[in-house]
Amino acid sequence: MTRKIWMFDTTLRDGEQVPGAKLNLYEKLEVAQQLKKLKVDIIEAGFPSSSVGDFNAVKEIAMKVGNTDDIIITALARAVEADIDAVYNSIKYAKRPLIHIVLGSSDIHVDKKFGKSKSQILDIGVDAVKYAKRFLPDVQYSLEDATRADFEYLWATIEAVVKAGATIINVPDTVGYAEPDEYGELIFKINDRLKNLNDKVLLSVHCHNDLGMATANTLAAIKNGADKVECTINGIGERAGNASLEEVVMAIKTRSSVYNAYTNINTKEIIKTSRLVSSLMGLDVQVNKAITGDNAFAHSSGIHQDGLLKARDVYEIMSPTEVGLDDMELVLTARSGRHAVKNALEKLGFNEMTNKQFEEIFEAFLELADVKKEIYNHDLYVIVENYYAKNDINNNMKHYSDNFYELMDLQVISNTSFPSAIVKIKKGSQILKSSAVGSGPIDALYSAITEICDLDIKLNEYKISSVSRGKEAFGKVRIQVECKGEKYVAKATDTDILKASAIAFISALNSIVVDSLLSVK
Amino acid sequence: MTRKIWMFDTTLRDGEQVPGAKLNLYEKLEVAQQLKKLKVDIIEAGFPSSSVGDFNAVKEIAMKVGNTDDIIITALARAVEADIDAVYNSIKYAKRPLIHIVLGSSDIHVDKKFGKSKSQILDIGVDAVKYAKRFLPDVQYSLEDATRADFEYLWATIEAVVKAGATIINVPDTVGYAEPDEYGELIFKINDRLKNLNDKVLLSVHCHNDLGMATANTLAAIKNGADKVECTINGIGERAGNASLEEVVMAIKTRSSVYNAYTNINTKEIIKTSRLVSSLMGLDVQVNKAITGDNAFAHSSGIHQDGLLKARDVYEIMSPTEVGLDDMELVLTARSGRHAVKNALEKLGFNEMTNKQFEEIFEAFLELADVKKEIYNHDLYVIVENYYAKNDINNNMKHYSDNFYELMDLQVISNTSFPSAIVKIKKGSQILKSSAVGSGPIDALYSAITEICDLDIKLNEYKISSVSRGKEAFGKVRIQVECKGEKYVAKATDTDILKASAIAFISALNSIVVDSLLSVK
Repeated sequence: MTRKIWMFDTTLRDGEQVPGAKLNLYEKLEVAQQLKKLKVDIIEAGFPSSSVGDFNAVKEIAMKVGNTDDIIITALARAVEADIDAVYNSIKYAKRPLIHIVLGSSDIHVDKKFGKSKSQILDIGVDAVKYAKRFLPDVQYSLEDATRADFEYLWATIEAVVKAGATIINVPDTVGYAEPDEYGELIFKINDRLKNLNDKVLLSVHCHNDLGMATANTLAAIKNGADKVECTINGIGERAGNASLEEVVMAIKTRSSVYNAYTNINTKEIIKTSRLVSSLMGLDVQVNKAITGDNAFAHSSGIHQDGLLKARDVYEIMSPTEVGLDDMELVLTARSGRHAVKNALEKLGFNEMTNKQFEEIFEAFLELADVKKEIYNHDLYVIVENYYAKNDINNNMKHYSDNFYELMDLQVISNTSFPSAIVKIKKGSQILKSSAVGSGPIDALYSAITEICDLDIKLNEYKISSVSRGKEAFGKVRIQVECKGEKYVAKATDTDILKASAIAFISALNSIVVDSLLSVK
Repeated sequence: MTRKIWMFDTTLRDGEQVPGAKLNLYEKLEVAQQLKKLKVDIIEAGFPSSSVGDFNAVKEIAMKVGNTDDIIITALARAVEADIDAVYNSIKYAKRPLIHIVLGSSDIHVDKKFGKSKSQILDIGVDAVKYAKRFLPDVQYSLEDATRADFEYLWATIEAVVKAGATIINVPDTVGYAEPDEYGELIFKINDRLKNLNDKVLLSVHCHNDLGMATANTLAAIKNGADKVECTINGIGERAGNASLEEVVMAIKTRSSVYNAYTNINTKEIIKTSRLVSSLMGLDVQVNKAITGDNAFAHSSGIHQDGLLKARDVYEIMSPTEVGLDDMELVLTARSGRHAVKNALEKLGFNEMTNKQFEEIFEAFLELADVKKEIYNHDLYVIVENYYAKNDINNNMKHYSDNFYELMDLQVISNTSFPSAIVKIKKGSQILKSSAVGSGPIDALYSAITEICDLDIKLNEYKISSVSRGKEAFGKVRIQVECKGEKYVAKATDTDILKASAIAFISALNSIVVDSLLSVK
């Protein structure tokens, strides 16, 4: 009998915790929309008590993505009332909200992290579930570090929280310590008792990849009775990340006779989702990443190519079309027209635009097509990303705008003797100009800008990468600067890497300005 | 009873097949030296019959790395005499050479790839082993696509090739189709019969990661009797790659009570090896890659950081020092001196330099330190890489040098209205100059260079990424151009991205020149 496995995506919570991968509100909404198109069952949208920004993002996702019956929206709370309040108040706008509570279960967590006794921790967990149940019927309880916990204590906790009303029990391998046989056995034992206790409760797993076994552990759990699995796109997340949604889903599909299970995932959306997440978070996917890496379906050796020409299944167990790889290559030009561009944007997952938004993006598209001639999917991502970034500033920071810097023009002369730069920058109604010589073109450029703003800024990191293809491909610049002991990350993308470098630096300046204005208040 | 697991590294064979990851002779030697320092038991150095370059690289590795008793050098042959000859003639210089023969074993391979009967294929395999045994006592036989083969045919083949003299039997999951339970069972059944047939023969596995389970499958095989495992650094290789050496080794070490096994690997060399391979092959490691990713030991969320401050083992199952992460951060300056630089190079694995080589590299170091002030490990990799690249051309291509292009000077003016470039290029004794206006700085630069060489060149791909840190970090440019239907890949690294772009383009031009000279002959 083939079972349905519930897919719980935590890209926006565990995934977004990756250093430097923070998304803005618009980007989070875009990812959530695409996850809905991918047909995940549950989206974990964030950790609302961690910041106002996270709270607002969860709320928007609950309203705009959670507005239908086919998706559940959840968010994370520690086992404290303030956290649960924040979760409820942000997810309550969804049609099907779920509260997710997490609390340590291993001796290491109970003793060293909380400095409490096991029975105290158990009581805190039960109280949290009871508190959450006042608001909503659906509550998930996660037993953090379950794979290193004492089994009978684990079970006592599960029994107590289920009696208190928990409807999903999640058994995380928080530190990525488990291996498939023992993890399978643990899930089998819990499932056996749980189904006797209350067969309506879903058993869930959440695996980390520290020893490279998150996918195998997740699948072992499915074999042994898990009903629901927690994953992220591209396997991103804390440290070595979580189980990759695409690997788990395609393993279940490709080896369905082994797992006797299926998911609701629309596998044709996998590549699009992977690229959207990678592009928005700025986290490159390794070329040999299973399923979503650039080479995952490439055959390079002569032996393999020869075999493939004779019959695809000689070296291929899945077809690239199953994960949507065939739809990905469309090249647009300035003559492509509105319909083609809209269609391409929709294929990439950008399908919730107003007409006004689309027109502004289309204008940016035409501007780029003029310079770059051929526009690839990656270019479209960048156009939309830049549009949202700009929009975000305009909407949220209007009242600071007199203090913001804006690049008006620049000239950089790069040669082997005297690299130099001139910049023209606007601040409110002032027009400021400056020039500098440097040890290289970027050094000259940043010296010229620094002279204008008169702040003590240290550049800690400067990273460039290219997006898309062709000699006028986008250059993506990502910098980290330090000012008065605070660190600021900024990024910018442009066909001209020098211009992108300037915009990123100015964007970091503006973050410093916001901070100093806020601290003055 | 704890068993030793033999570690077989195929980074230089299966790994080097990754598109665009080709290494030159010096780079291969450097990787092989580092693998020896890591204490792998067997290095698969290449596929000698595939090209003269590969043959020579295997031969050099056999001579210079395989010159001691503590390492075995092997190379791949199909089951044909010419391939086996090429393997023997290249590896025979090693103290402990091993011939590796591969032949299909599944119905799909036998029927569709070879169009032969099973017994014909079995005979071909036996003949190949007998032929190899004329040269050497140690012969490994790989049953390609074993996980999709008929078990009794698999066993019949194993029995026959062992009787013919094979000393290692390798059971590859060529297409990454297996999952741990069934793969473990397959290995258990083979091991059971094999140990009764001949208990001197080593049982080996080789797993691919198409469904994200290469590491778990390899470990399941170890549990079930495998004596030897084939891996690559960072899990690179065909399609989604191979089992990651670092994941398998650290899982065995971290969970030693589960696996009852150990390896000889010096885990403190893992990070260095990973970075060397990644840097030389130009294959970035995903930040959340287990063990070797930049974030593998980073803890980002507030919850985790709080836990860690209370006790490391709350969220940490391995210490970063175990894999050598602590030794990695040394910052050198122009004042560091020869000893410090030599020491740093040795720590990175560059420890087989002649004095002359070191002096030239030290000069390049001083030059860079002048511009960049702080020199990180990644910078050292680039210095050594550039040195070898230059050397390679000088040694191997002297007789073509009159036809080669060399960049003498450039100036690029990047602004919002008329990006332009001027270049001065040497060809033999001629000095050529040219200028061009473009749609962006790179376009202007490449137009100016193209004008000089007067070839019909199409730029297919242009990719930049940064290496190391700081505003004058290295920019790495990698391009693919097309000329007369042939594709050429070239890369260059410099603190100035525009200069790196020019050098990469000129290096591609020189490849085209070599090709046209060779075809004239």
